[in-house]
Amino acid sequence: MSNSVQQAIDLIQETRNHILEDYKQLLRFASIGADPAHAADVKACADWIVAQLQAMGFDNCEAIATGGHPVVYGDWLKAGADKPTVLVYAHYDVQPVDPLPLWHSEPFDAVIRDGKIIARGASDNKAGVWGSLKTFEALLKANGELPVNIKIMFEGEEESGSPSIEGFVQANKARLEADLLLNCDGDFAPEDPRLYYAGRGIVSAQVTARGPKADIHSGLYGGIVQNPLHVAGAIIASFHDAEGRVRLPGYQDALREASPAEKERIAAGFDRDAMLAGAGVTQFWGEAIAPAAERATVHPTLDVNGIWGGYQGPGSKTIIPAEAGFKLTLRIAPDQDPRAVSQLLKRHVESFASDTVSVDCAIGEEAWYFQLETDGPWLEAVQAAIEATVGRRAQLVRTGGSIPILGVFNREIGLPITAFAFGEGEGIHSPNESLDIDSFFTSLEAAVRLYHNLGALGKSSRS
Amino acid sequence: MSNSVQQAIDLIQETRNHILEDYKQLLRFASIGADPAHAADVKACADWIVAQLQAMGFDNCEAIATGGHPVVYGDWLKAGADKPTVLVYAHYDVQPVDPLPLWHSEPFDAVIRDGKIIARGASDNKAGVWGSLKTFEALLKANGELPVNIKIMFEGEEESGSPSIEGFVQANKARLEADLLLNCDGDFAPEDPRLYYAGRGIVSAQVTARGPKADIHSGLYGGIVQNPLHVAGAIIASFHDAEGRVRLPGYQDALREASPAEKERIAAGFDRDAMLAGAGVTQFWGEAIAPAAERATVHPTLDVNGIWGGYQGPGSKTIIPAEAGFKLTLRIAPDQDPRAVSQLLKRHVESFASDTVSVDCAIGEEAWYFQLETDGPWLEAVQAAIEATVGRRAQLVRTGGSIPILGVFNREIGLPITAFAFGEGEGIHSPNESLDIDSFFTSLEAAVRLYHNLGALGKSSRS
Repeated sequence: MSNSVQQAIDLIQETRNHILEDYKQLLRFASIGADPAHAADVKACADWIVAQLQAMGFDNCEAIATGGHPVVYGDWLKAGADKPTVLVYAHYDVQPVDPLPLWHSEPFDAVIRDGKIIARGASDNKAGVWGSLKTFEALLKANGELPVNIKIMFEGEEESGSPSIEGFVQANKARLEADLLLNCDGDFAPEDPRLYYAGRGIVSAQVTARGPKADIHSGLYGGIVQNPLHVAGAIIASFHDAEGRVRLPGYQDALREASPAEKERIAAGFDRDAMLAGAGVTQFWGEAIAPAAERATVHPTLDVNGIWGGYQGPGSKTIIPAEAGFKLTLRIAPDQDPRAVSQLLKRHVESFASDTVSVDCAIGEEAWYFQLETDGPWLEAVQAAIEATVGRRAQLVRTGGSIPILGVFNREIGLPITAFAFGEGEGIHSPNESLDIDSFFTSLEAAVRLYHNLGALGKSSRS
Repeated sequence: MSNSVQQAIDLIQETRNHILEDYKQLLRFASIGADPAHAADVKACADWIVAQLQAMGFDNCEAIATGGHPVVYGDWLKAGADKPTVLVYAHYDVQPVDPLPLWHSEPFDAVIRDGKIIARGASDNKAGVWGSLKTFEALLKANGELPVNIKIMFEGEEESGSPSIEGFVQANKARLEADLLLNCDGDFAPEDPRLYYAGRGIVSAQVTARGPKADIHSGLYGGIVQNPLHVAGAIIASFHDAEGRVRLPGYQDALREASPAEKERIAAGFDRDAMLAGAGVTQFWGEAIAPAAERATVHPTLDVNGIWGGYQGPGSKTIIPAEAGFKLTLRIAPDQDPRAVSQLLKRHVESFASDTVSVDCAIGEEAWYFQLETDGPWLEAVQAAIEATVGRRAQLVRTGGSIPILGVFNREIGLPITAFAFGEGEGIHSPNESLDIDSFFTSLEAAVRLYHNLGALGKSSRS
């Protein structure tokens, strides 16, 4: 068995250039799920992945239509009934690319520079898609079979809050039946491997304040017509107190305090210097309220992500704008119900409406927090694979981010979930996103070992 | 004399189509002074007007370079030393065109529809340029001479706060010497003629709040990195109290209350229903503080004119943006010193800076209020011309708008100023700006009478 592992690893090393060149094809799809203008790119990307799965010998390969973007499905179930079935999750959609002027190369050119491949989605999360496929391909070529049964589920809506995925999962419970869900959304740094074991939920919304019937002259009307941009400012200012506490009424009512053990794990998993450097700030915000590690992971947040209204061009334009708008996201804590949160957000925001400025708060995503295995044989299979590859076990960390699909699986299916991700990423959700190439190939080795370990476990690990 | 007036009026009516067709040429220059990308259009527009003046027989015609856009100058000084010299002011620059999607035709196409000519600048203030030129042309063609000496001064920076004009006026005091300044920036409704006799000053600024080094992931950093958009919201919210009073510290300290007579004139000149309809609102803002007529004219204001930051595209993007910015203008009251106001604005805004979000407030325009004649022979010449043309005298109104050049003339030259404008406008500073064609030709008739009246006054009206 160990020999077959080495054969697959050797094969990966020998075909390194091919794997990389073919990855550029995947990266060149501008699969921006949030932007309707890119719907065709998202679909083309899904179809391309389906073709890859078919070529590898997977069965039942299909870009399954949903209300939104398709889910890529494919399975290989020939490992035998005594072997576990692993449902592999990743997402092939990517974040928008703005602000484009800050990119040093075109976001979908997939240029290689300084040992990194640079593209929107290179890390988040096409690395999860490509890493999985290339692991299975190497195992199949080296051994003629996989050590476990595999079901692939690659989503196309992760970056836009997975609006269709809850319905998809509910409608496909039999198809998705498995012993373990392996979440491949994340990244893998060989020097400092980390595994997300939990994350926040999310609620997103778009607020529109509408005042005069058109942009009107601020000389003639200044002082007597309420300015919707001022209303937007008042709403935004109402969201936090001076220390950085979200003061949305009722928002923090149901919070439970993390346990001392959990707080310790959170603190251990928080790299203060790296986070400061990553943001380019000299100090954190809100530390008078709680340690930054907890603020960034288990505390609920509210961030305005974008705003617009009136004149944005050069020079000045003396108007009271007809309309102002902004987008916001709330990261919600364990046990916070996203639908309850969205309702109290809507109520609060819309209370700023007046007789002359209307305020509309349109809710977008509503997703629960997620929770993965923190011990047990499945996680041990991951840890042993990582240790055998890079000489150390992964640190379990809680992320402040959200993976809506995992919250859905937690609540709808209830199967165990562990995480394993591919390659070290930079600039996730930012300009010049990149994937470190060496670390990607290191993670492929670890993945070969992981599937071997999972195969060795058999069905016995089923609870 | 009355006969020569009629000849000029007849000539205008006979050449109506020509006047209108040629006006389209003037309107087709995209002379957006505030936008550096349109600097060549502004210059081309100035040169075109110079050529028109030359063709009419004016002397010393020149697009005089300034630090910004040129001033169009030309004179006709052959009326004799016993006749007054009138310095005619209008501006050929126009407001930006955004939001472009709300225009029903291209802003510089100069389409005629429903008796209106539609273009950015059709009313504000190319009508003042064209109306003046066509009046002089008709008088010259009908009579071979003008009843008064004329100096033309058409500005190219009015819509961007006239940054060069104070220096220009200081450097050209001899050239601009005159008995009367006639301000042709405004509009003329035959059914309800109005003359601005005073207006507010203006201070404009652009605020930039900068936080993290790039747009960063709001899941990973939400809660621990201060969001510059929240700071922008807090600044905007700080500008007004709940009733609509500007609460910029010190801003209202030096205000003098308008006299009872002035309040009466303000109230009489304020058309409540027209203003409500013009803004498309059902009620005014801030009436608990003072009557809307005064709030719109003699009270100081602060309006945010535009805002931007972060993601403005479709769907959501989960970021804390690196930067947010907004533009604002303050309309300042009589006796408020714009330079003192800009300093207290800057101080207040920049006080919102923190260790992790910098705040910069860049001051743009700084212009004083202005004050025109409210009685005397010059104004009477205007009133008599209007009455002879439309059967009623103009109502004197105070505007809430600003004409920086007039404040400069008030302070630098001190010569009497009256107003006379051309045609009824709609959508000034808004999409689908238009000029009513019939009213424009009515105002040309009134202008012929006005210059005749001024010529009859002689130098005797000089104080």
